[in-house]
Amino acid sequence: MAIKYELIKVCKQSGARLGRVHTPHGSFDTPAFMPVGTQATVKTVSPEELKAMDAGIILSNTYHLFLRPGHKLIERAGGLHRFMNWDRAILTDSGGFQVFSLSAMRKIKEEGVEFRSHLNGDRLFLSPELATEIQNALGSDIMMAFDECPPYPADYDYVKQSVERTSRWAERCLKAHARPDDQGLFAIVQGGMYEDLRRQSAADLTSLDFPGYAIGGLSVGEPKDVMYEVLDYTVPLLPADKPRYLMGVGSPDALIEGSIRGIDMFDCVLPTRIARNGTCMTSRGRLVVRNARYAEDFGPLDPACDCYTCRNYSRAYIRHLIKADETFGIRLTTIHNLHFLLKLMQDVRQAIMEDRLLDFRDRFFAEYGLFDNDKGF
Amino acid sequence: MAIKYELIKVCKQSGARLGRVHTPHGSFDTPAFMPVGTQATVKTVSPEELKAMDAGIILSNTYHLFLRPGHKLIERAGGLHRFMNWDRAILTDSGGFQVFSLSAMRKIKEEGVEFRSHLNGDRLFLSPELATEIQNALGSDIMMAFDECPPYPADYDYVKQSVERTSRWAERCLKAHARPDDQGLFAIVQGGMYEDLRRQSAADLTSLDFPGYAIGGLSVGEPKDVMYEVLDYTVPLLPADKPRYLMGVGSPDALIEGSIRGIDMFDCVLPTRIARNGTCMTSRGRLVVRNARYAEDFGPLDPACDCYTCRNYSRAYIRHLIKADETFGIRLTTIHNLHFLLKLMQDVRQAIMEDRLLDFRDRFFAEYGLFDNDKGF
Repeated sequence: MAIKYELIKVCKQSGARLGRVHTPHGSFDTPAFMPVGTQATVKTVSPEELKAMDAGIILSNTYHLFLRPGHKLIERAGGLHRFMNWDRAILTDSGGFQVFSLSAMRKIKEEGVEFRSHLNGDRLFLSPELATEIQNALGSDIMMAFDECPPYPADYDYVKQSVERTSRWAERCLKAHARPDDQGLFAIVQGGMYEDLRRQSAADLTSLDFPGYAIGGLSVGEPKDVMYEVLDYTVPLLPADKPRYLMGVGSPDALIEGSIRGIDMFDCVLPTRIARNGTCMTSRGRLVVRNARYAEDFGPLDPACDCYTCRNYSRAYIRHLIKADETFGIRLTTIHNLHFLLKLMQDVRQAIMEDRLLDFRDRFFAEYGLFDNDKGF
Repeated sequence: MAIKYELIKVCKQSGARLGRVHTPHGSFDTPAFMPVGTQATVKTVSPEELKAMDAGIILSNTYHLFLRPGHKLIERAGGLHRFMNWDRAILTDSGGFQVFSLSAMRKIKEEGVEFRSHLNGDRLFLSPELATEIQNALGSDIMMAFDECPPYPADYDYVKQSVERTSRWAERCLKAHARPDDQGLFAIVQGGMYEDLRRQSAADLTSLDFPGYAIGGLSVGEPKDVMYEVLDYTVPLLPADKPRYLMGVGSPDALIEGSIRGIDMFDCVLPTRIARNGTCMTSRGRLVVRNARYAEDFGPLDPACDCYTCRNYSRAYIRHLIKADETFGIRLTTIHNLHFLLKLMQDVRQAIMEDRLLDFRDRFFAEYGLFDNDKGF
């Protein structure tokens, strides 16, 4: 088995899990946030910078790498780790989400999905077998089963059909998986906002004994309390001895709330995407460093932060760089935002260790006043 | 005196000088190449990366910083070194070259130059006094006198007028200079491709005892042999106990030929600019890593190079990043190109030390076959 989950402790106050996931490329502590390196690079930052921030695992996108530069090229390069110079763990998604959110003219059949590339309009086809083959070629430590992620809102009958197809596809992925000793294949529980469909999906998939389970189809536009409600009834359906991964979630509040509900892994483009726009997560809430009010602010982005950016650069300087289209500016905001979330997860783990995660949440929310908007950052 | 030049040795074979320039922010060995950080950042790279590459001094542009974010803001930030987190030496140019090359609708008068900002069309004015005031506010270790850089070709009478005005302006800069103990002001010898005008300019300026002298108005479109000829008769006109700086030159061949002719300092955007375009300087000549032929080339940019990029990444990976518009790709090519030139200067200094710079040049040119185009890279 390529992936092993070690449960270290359950928080007596919140029920959150402190654990460790062992992979062929090292272990990482959970709950963990995974920075996203869509195209075989976490935009603007180096592997060394990610390590300095305590990133133990990153995510890369099967869909994007399939389109460019192609999984066969990466396989010939010696695999994704070597290609991108990252020797810690990598999780690749299945491509399913991108096929449904990025590509054009998709057509879902039992066999798989026909779609057109968002890059050049090429007609392409992705199936459970091909998504698995691609991820086998990439050599990621954790692979994801090819799934369908329904939009929000979606009607019951559609989601039911989709859940059943996703279960059949998961079984096909498992069968196609060529390297189970080197790579762990996780299944994705779908079911939208329907409790009985989440139950059905979880029952189908846990019967197949995957080394880990994800919860997909959340953070797709639904209100946060709906997401938390789905977590409340879905997480208990997952095996306690396997890691649980909440896909596409990375706002500080949801990372804490997800951890409280027993989630072990998260990923999201949020910290890196907003960084490129000059928006920073700080202990005092969101800070848009592009704003004119920071033009002569010579303090750090976040006085409470000890990241490379905050130790060395001022808001005024970073604002200048971003206004002047200097990419070093978004490198600095990216480092800060990733550090912020990775440090938050360290704090969450420490709070679990000390049985005080609910206290930590309450203080975090109150003290820092982060959540003046529904995006949670 | 803020700037002191220490002559260590003259190459018995070539006449090139090995030396050291002492500044309020440390010393650097010469001949030296200065990476260009136009807008208070060397595009895509960090100060730590520059230090790891042995950069002892960088250049920043007065014109750009005057326009954005403004020299007064940088002064309030504690000066340019602190603003950009660079504690080694900085040279600022005078803004003259950019006013003549970048701005629109310039009008030269004895008092100074009227022009329109290339950013927003604002009507602005730059004079010897203001260029000096700006550089005093920035706090660079080496400042440049405000000069006029005539185009190539330019007729004799125009260049003569311009040389005489540049001399008068240099005197005004010297008078306006408010911090001679902290910052060294260099004068710029002009005169186009006319020997007697270079003589006149050098005589005017050396009579004023600046702590260093630059040669301006070269690398503006003239053939390389014309540039070398101008150096042949101009360098001997400059005092031996002061550093000599050849402005805007950074192709490998010209760095070597300039060193042979007694130049101590160089700067150029070439390595960083071509890097952003996917073009690399290597020991085997120019390599355009964007090209399709490198799509599956898993070797380093330059097998003879030990820079961060070449130690860790393949041509195929860098090509992928650049094709996919990932800025980490141009960060990698920028690091490589700067390392290449800074290492070349180390080699040049070693060759001077060992009285074999002509041999070094001949081997460099022959062995590596760099110069298959008139750009010298």
